[in-house]
Amino acid sequence: MTKEVIVVRDKPVSEYVLNAVVAFNSGAEEVEIVGRGRYISKAVVVFNRLRERLEETLKVVNVEIGSEESRRGRPVAYIKIRVTQGL
Amino acid sequence: MTKEVIVVRDKPVSEYVLNAVVAFNSGAEEVEIVGRGRYISKAVVVFNRLRERLEETLKVVNVEIGSEESRRGRPVAYIKIRVTQGL
Repeated sequence: MTKEVIVVRDKPVSEYVLNAVVAFNSGAEEVEIVGRGRYISKAVVVFNRLRERLEETLKVVNVEIGSEESRRGRPVAYIKIRVTQGL
Repeated sequence: MTKEVIVVRDKPVSEYVLNAVVAFNSGAEEVEIVGRGRYISKAVVVFNRLRERLEETLKVVNVEIGSEESRRGRPVAYIKIRVTQGL
């Protein structure tokens, strides 16, 4: 199963939405939108914009939230939004 | 089914965690942690802290993300984290 992971940081929302659409068009079966710390809210915005674009064809596989260790060894909250496109 | 809704805004994280624990102790069967806009990240932090406290007894019922109309009629992203406490 081909999965594209899109980590949301400082780029414009539209860039991440475009990455997701291109991933699906290039055959990715699943896209995982990841947001950590203060980017969690932005990851949800990316999801909402993607859903506006792909409408009912976008299916949510799972939304996972939790805490993991950052590169600096400190706990950081995260969200992982797994989506597929069912035509 | 008694459900307590906790809307995360400007108070300290620990206050929302305390509200959730008190709700469970007072018999709430389910707690829904809600975060809108920039408070989405903080809602996940509240969830993580609650899970640190309640450990395995805390069960995730569902994590819902989406967009809804704010009071000023503008779309706002949200997260709704529904949890129960299974002893």
